[in-house]
Amino acid sequence: MSTSDTFFAEVATLLGPRGFTRDADLMAPWLTDWRGRFTGQALGLASPADTAEVSALVRLCAAHGVPIVPQGGNSGMSGGATPDESGDSLLLSLRRMNAIHAIDVEGRKATCGGGVVLQTLHEATEAQGLRFPLTLGGKGSATVGGLISTNAGGSQVLRHGSMRALVLGLEAVLADGSVFSQLTPLKKDNRGFDLKQLLIGSEGTLGIVTGATLRLVPAIADRIVIWAGLASLQAARALLLHCEDGAGEAIEGFEVLPQGCLEAVLAYLPDSRAPLGQAHAWHALIEVVADRAAAEGLRERCEAMMAGAFERGLIEDAALSASEAQAEAFWLLRESVAPAERAKGSAVQHDISVPVERMPDFVDAVVPTIEAAWPGTEAIAFGHLGDGNVHFHVIAPAGSDAGWSAADGKRISREVHDLVTRWGGSISAEHGIGQLKRDELARLGDPVALDMMRRVKAALDPAGLLNPGKLVTLAPPAATA
Amino acid sequence: MSTSDTFFAEVATLLGPRGFTRDADLMAPWLTDWRGRFTGQALGLASPADTAEVSALVRLCAAHGVPIVPQGGNSGMSGGATPDESGDSLLLSLRRMNAIHAIDVEGRKATCGGGVVLQTLHEATEAQGLRFPLTLGGKGSATVGGLISTNAGGSQVLRHGSMRALVLGLEAVLADGSVFSQLTPLKKDNRGFDLKQLLIGSEGTLGIVTGATLRLVPAIADRIVIWAGLASLQAARALLLHCEDGAGEAIEGFEVLPQGCLEAVLAYLPDSRAPLGQAHAWHALIEVVADRAAAEGLRERCEAMMAGAFERGLIEDAALSASEAQAEAFWLLRESVAPAERAKGSAVQHDISVPVERMPDFVDAVVPTIEAAWPGTEAIAFGHLGDGNVHFHVIAPAGSDAGWSAADGKRISREVHDLVTRWGGSISAEHGIGQLKRDELARLGDPVALDMMRRVKAALDPAGLLNPGKLVTLAPPAATA
Repeated sequence: MSTSDTFFAEVATLLGPRGFTRDADLMAPWLTDWRGRFTGQALGLASPADTAEVSALVRLCAAHGVPIVPQGGNSGMSGGATPDESGDSLLLSLRRMNAIHAIDVEGRKATCGGGVVLQTLHEATEAQGLRFPLTLGGKGSATVGGLISTNAGGSQVLRHGSMRALVLGLEAVLADGSVFSQLTPLKKDNRGFDLKQLLIGSEGTLGIVTGATLRLVPAIADRIVIWAGLASLQAARALLLHCEDGAGEAIEGFEVLPQGCLEAVLAYLPDSRAPLGQAHAWHALIEVVADRAAAEGLRERCEAMMAGAFERGLIEDAALSASEAQAEAFWLLRESVAPAERAKGSAVQHDISVPVERMPDFVDAVVPTIEAAWPGTEAIAFGHLGDGNVHFHVIAPAGSDAGWSAADGKRISREVHDLVTRWGGSISAEHGIGQLKRDELARLGDPVALDMMRRVKAALDPAGLLNPGKLVTLAPPAATA
Repeated sequence: MSTSDTFFAEVATLLGPRGFTRDADLMAPWLTDWRGRFTGQALGLASPADTAEVSALVRLCAAHGVPIVPQGGNSGMSGGATPDESGDSLLLSLRRMNAIHAIDVEGRKATCGGGVVLQTLHEATEAQGLRFPLTLGGKGSATVGGLISTNAGGSQVLRHGSMRALVLGLEAVLADGSVFSQLTPLKKDNRGFDLKQLLIGSEGTLGIVTGATLRLVPAIADRIVIWAGLASLQAARALLLHCEDGAGEAIEGFEVLPQGCLEAVLAYLPDSRAPLGQAHAWHALIEVVADRAAAEGLRERCEAMMAGAFERGLIEDAALSASEAQAEAFWLLRESVAPAERAKGSAVQHDISVPVERMPDFVDAVVPTIEAAWPGTEAIAFGHLGDGNVHFHVIAPAGSDAGWSAADGKRISREVHDLVTRWGGSISAEHGIGQLKRDELARLGDPVALDMMRRVKAALDPAGLLNPGKLVTLAPPAATA
């Protein structure tokens, strides 16, 4: 037998028929990312049943020098879970490790496998009167392990933080197969470097997340969704501060979109209607929630808060959701922005952030800059104002699909990334780097931080077997090599 | 000139007369830690004025192979800022870098140098109607840089987290003199490993903290301190959950002490009096605070909460502070536990944590275990129940000072650390490792985590020049070498 035959035989013995396949049809769905941007090849698809199997598998891979691409729900935005085209690596799915081991109602925490799907976690915690306060569009497929590896965000970061803030305990298999095991959380522990935080957001390049203990919060007893019409993004920022002063931590979400976005959504969604009677330059969607202890008088507090905002000249109009159905309807408008804009034609999309206080001026500056440099394009910014995180789409000129090439998109993205870097921002606010932005990170990232990342990567995965080609390459960029 | 003379001349030229001294009298106060446990020697005392000087100094040290021991207020608990006895290293004081560069009232953040003293930061933020929500006994000397390097805790961690949770932006000089510069915070940034969190709590072994941007919260508009008498520590845990259900994030502190502790404090403090009429097995001090938006009805809510606790049988008695003076008086009792216990005779002290829910049973188990193993000793546990963090003191048998040796203390500590490890806890909850617990960490720490720390340390400081001999040694323990 050749080396690789030996390897395959060992993997098959280790994982059994449910845990390993080389069948092309079975592998195919997992070799292309869900947006269809990247397609790779793999030696095989391994689906271990537990941490011990992951550990043994990684040891086998290390012994044979086989690279590993870990994958959760395959719903990432940056190709971080898609192998390269060489076909040299093993695709390692965590999806079978989908058990919720414990929900500690009193201690408000849940311990589960890395393969648990976010929606499953939501349902299981809600059944216990609690909730896991992170959600996003891909919740039906995204897994806990993937969410941790990418430090996922979503629409509740304003109050609860991104995934990083919600992980109390972590288990991960390292490049040599050893198991980093800190599932039992200690509220205070000062025994050296925060290795847990180092692993979170490392996109599978330092370790494979096999399990986690996650923070839960009380279930929502009441919520009001406010739709407000505004004259400017500066007013939206002032409104956010006004609301935080008035309602503090009850503000869970603060989303903004321009009038043009709302119109695109209304045209795209059948039977939809505008929340307010008139047009406004900008719209804000504000989610205010209360648990049982704080639910009393929530509506009155929201009404007083918006009356104050009107008096201060911050808003032009506002509507409070009168029912849960209307709250959902408001959110549906916000969540339909991306598909509605996609329906207009091909678009170059960016997930960027700037310091929160600079976001209004940044958007006011970058939209005309891009539209002037690429005549006929439409640049739109919408998203999480409270986090300084804006999704910035540049839509191709109408009817230009033929002349609009990937090269145009790349040039536009370079310009957007240059601008955001000049404004002290990030080229990846919440979607991660993966393979999509790896070269842009190498081009624009702080050389000191990049050097630290390369050193840490080389120290913890000297053979470069964990998710190669993602996030940060081991070699420094050619220009400085 | 010898190599070292060249080095000294270069340092003197770089830093000027205010920035460098080799005078033994000037150096002496900084060569012994404040508890007087460790005394070292140093080549000289460098006090750079800004980050550029720190960077240039570190480059000089790197070129000459001179180790560096960074120091803030010299009020650490584990000897982490005291050089060893070789006299080979340079003591680097950050105390001159004590400027508060900006307080952003709207954005609720402050940017300052690493040498800013905590109390100075408190005063400056209070003057702006805000507060920095971390405090501890050494606030008059502890610096921001030291607090970050040690991930300091204190009595408000329950609500606001330890230092790690309060650092929005960080600047640090690395082992090669390069400057890691992330002072401008981005609320969302997914460009790879969280290097900021890696540096926080690394005790100066990976980088020297020269500046930070810190999270501020609204000033306290009202507070109530509740003193409750309890039958057991289990009841205290149930009371904490009861209060969190009732008052949520208004609970900033939850401290516990046994009756014996309170009696020692009352005997030690002149003119002090017990808050409650009778003795109780355990006492809880609960700090409930409200900012302007939440201050209305705080007292009524606290009264209702404690009435509910009484009805549920969780407490035997309780008193609410009727004035700020009484609130301070309650806290003075709590803060006098350590000096009152020290007044009883020599004691071996431990700063340990276990999973929060296990703390009552742990204390009930460990106190009799230690007292039985060392007859005549008195073991007392008190501290931050809400964080699972207990300060555990073992007091020498009365009149035994002659027979009570350092060796006894070491044996007791080994036993306590063995016990806490068996309970899934930490041998350092908030005081760090430094040189005090370095060998215990090597003995009891998870080998996988220790190996990761050694690899990261070697990657970022290959010559081992940053705070050598602290936290984690580069060589693995002899048994496994």
